Amino acid sequence: MLRPIISLTTDFGLRDPYVAEMKAVILRICAEARIVDISHEIKKYDVTMGAFALACAAPYFPEGTFHVAVVDPGVGTERQPIIIQTSKCYYVGPDNGVLALAARNDGGPESIHKIANPKLILPQVSSTFHGRDIFAPAAAQMANGIPPAEFGPKISRISNAAFPRVVKRRGTLVGEVIHTDEFGNIITNLQSKDIQIIRTQSSINIKVKNTQLRLKLCETYAEVPKHRPLALIGSHNFLEISLNQGNAARAYKVKTGDKIAVQLAERTGRIKP
Amino acid sequence: MLRPIISLTTDFGLRDPYVAEMKAVILRICAEARIVDISHEIKKYDVTMGAFALACAAPYFPEGTFHVAVVDPGVGTERQPIIIQTSKCYYVGPDNGVLALAARNDGGPESIHKIANPKLILPQVSSTFHGRDIFAPAAAQMANGIPPAEFGPKISRISNAAFPRVVKRRGTLVGEVIHTDEFGNIITNLQSKDIQIIRTQSSINIKVKNTQLRLKLCETYAEVPKHRPLALIGSHNFLEISLNQGNAARAYKVKTGDKIAVQLAERTGRIKP
Amino acid sequence: MLRPIISLTTDFGLRDPYVAEMKAVILRICAEARIVDISHEIKKYDVTMGAFALACAAPYFPEGTFHVAVVDPGVGTERQPIIIQTSKCYYVGPDNGVLALAARNDGGPESIHKIANPKLILPQVSSTFHGRDIFAPAAAQMANGIPPAEFGPKISRISNAAFPRVVKRRGTLVGEVIHTDEFGNIITNLQSKDIQIIRTQSSINIKVKNTQLRLKLCETYAEVPKHRPLALIGSHNFLEISLNQGNAARAYKVKTGDKIAVQLAERTGRIKP
Repeated sequence: MLRPIISLTTDFGLRDPYVAEMKAVILRICAEARIVDISHEIKKYDVTMGAFALACAAPYFPEGTFHVAVVDPGVGTERQPIIIQTSKCYYVGPDNGVLALAARNDGGPESIHKIANPKLILPQVSSTFHGRDIFAPAAAQMANGIPPAEFGPKISRISNAAFPRVVKRRGTLVGEVIHTDEFGNIITNLQSKDIQIIRTQSSINIKVKNTQLRLKLCETYAEVPKHRPLALIGSHNFLEISLNQGNAARAYKVKTGDKIAVQLAERTGRIKP
Repeated sequence: MLRPIISLTTDFGLRDPYVAEMKAVILRICAEARIVDISHEIKKYDVTMGAFALACAAPYFPEGTFHVAVVDPGVGTERQPIIIQTSKCYYVGPDNGVLALAARNDGGPESIHKIANPKLILPQVSSTFHGRDIFAPAAAQMANGIPPAEFGPKISRISNAAFPRVVKRRGTLVGEVIHTDEFGNIITNLQSKDIQIIRTQSSINIKVKNTQLRLKLCETYAEVPKHRPLALIGSHNFLEISLNQGNAARAYKVKTGDKIAVQLAERTGRIKP
Repeated sequence: MLRPIISLTTDFGLRDPYVAEMKAVILRICAEARIVDISHEIKKYDVTMGAFALACAAPYFPEGTFHVAVVDPGVGTERQPIIIQTSKCYYVGPDNGVLALAARNDGGPESIHKIANPKLILPQVSSTFHGRDIFAPAAAQMANGIPPAEFGPKISRISNAAFPRVVKRRGTLVGEVIHTDEFGNIITNLQSKDIQIIRTQSSINIKVKNTQLRLKLCETYAEVPKHRPLALIGSHNFLEISLNQGNAARAYKVKTGDKIAVQLAERTGRIKP
């Protein structure tokens, strides 16, 4: 039998022992589990960034993976601890939106259960560390074969991730920066389906924060000279603004949440109707 | 048979290949070992922080785990490389206090052995990287079933961790900040047993560094408004000072080693006699 | 049968989900693989630092390990994706020098193959993330037993790492700083074979950037007082300049690429002829 896979996404950082405590709890319950870190450097309390990281990585995991995501500013309050089952896998975490984007990409929840059964979590639950005391043991119990229905009552709907929408306004697509990665790539919420690309190699006009740019829509960074800006559809299918071997987010002083307005240049492209 | 678990706690950081070399050495000796990182971002040479991280995480690991901790400013000098066996697990590292706190929490050492047998460590021992050349191979050999007694002579006592003690002074408990975590939580050496809590929801007077605070003793961060301070008994049973969704250590300019004085408010609590 | 080991060396950082996507792809193809991170904090686009980290760690891994290294400023351009087989193990990555140093240490390539077979990589290859779409699946397929020759045509030679050479100039050895580690150790490209050590405990004259130092050649950091400088042959056999429990790179404002000139003191050593 294949050993179960449990992924972890948190804002706990790697300096403190918190992530290790979650892993230790998992291995004590399910000795055969293999644990894969998605990220523990999610910005503190940034549920949207956590949802984004999980949604990016989840599609590459084998079916049946148990994904635990804990970005949880409301830990200990009335927000519910939940398990979402989709057609592909399981998501475990607080019902604050951190699981919603990945679940939606899988086609939405097939079932949602509250985690309420005290026999399937740690005997002593702290009010500040549900990652260790509730979510890690729940995932490990599922990895041992316990079905979601054993954990608690069914829930009919989940909180949505605060994921910004693209708006069309006078021939311009207005979106948002959803992430700036460690390379300084500016990742927007515009997807390839939002922009009907007439041809690659076309140019697009982008206003990002206070900077107006006319950028070549490239397939690789190296299509422009070193340290020059470009646009491309990134590896997760979002429009990105980058500098070849440079840091675009720093150069344009852009951060998550900044607005971005995109207009295809008249001759080479057009806004999708 | 269950695969042995080896945990690693170091101040080596994650940028350099040092941690990977330890893991490679472990897997070459014990192919079945599973390795769990506790932290590699211990502050350089900070034995106390290493001891604290290991002591926090160790109780959550399965019995029989092999814990390797290498925060070792005296590497290559006369400090001894040791193995501590407790009733629960094994600790491997330098005898400078980094293992002492966790071992004490387990009820103290059942046996202590020096690592001296050259057949059970790497053939060439560098003078600067005992993590790779002595401690990793020793843990992997034990994971293969070699008992501690094979590694070298028995030792009667170990160095203690430089873990500060709580002092009572004129109705005030004087303790110390032992750690500020990545969330900015200020973790003190006062434990719930030091403060006899009459009831939660009471207020306590705390002087931390130069700031006098009157704080609600909470169970969850969200009991106070966003960015407001609170006190709580954290998930490792120490008194912590936090800001709800903020960074208390930064706000109050507090760092490890700073003094903290605590007095329960007169009406709602009292100092334990 | 032993489970195959795959190591990963990248400049992707640990904040973004990129590394997790590579791991997920590996586990989907080869469920039994065990994955060891060498470093994901290689300086962005710094092929030499990536080559150095891989070359440091690789010798400690078991024979037959599959090493994936992705520091790839030319991703999506004409640089080839390759597999190098040596007498000890396999290297997978872009042919830009990042694999060359480690392969040379193994005695050089026994065979080099281009990765070209579309059946052995992901069906959709992005132009910006070959780590996930080409290199991770190629390593996982090899871990499943697919030989390098199935991946594509043989290649006769590889690009060399931009690894600086030591030059002798008027009785002085001129080298370069190849890495400053997280402890602030200044690691040079001078190896013990370059300097014939008459005896340890001798002193050496070193000019590093603008600072002239006369340093004791030590075996351990603790041979000099705290925060004092020393020289030693580090755990990877390169000459290093350190401060005992301090940060030499910061103190002397030294960074990778800075020149270093070494002269053994007249009475206690001499330059190797």
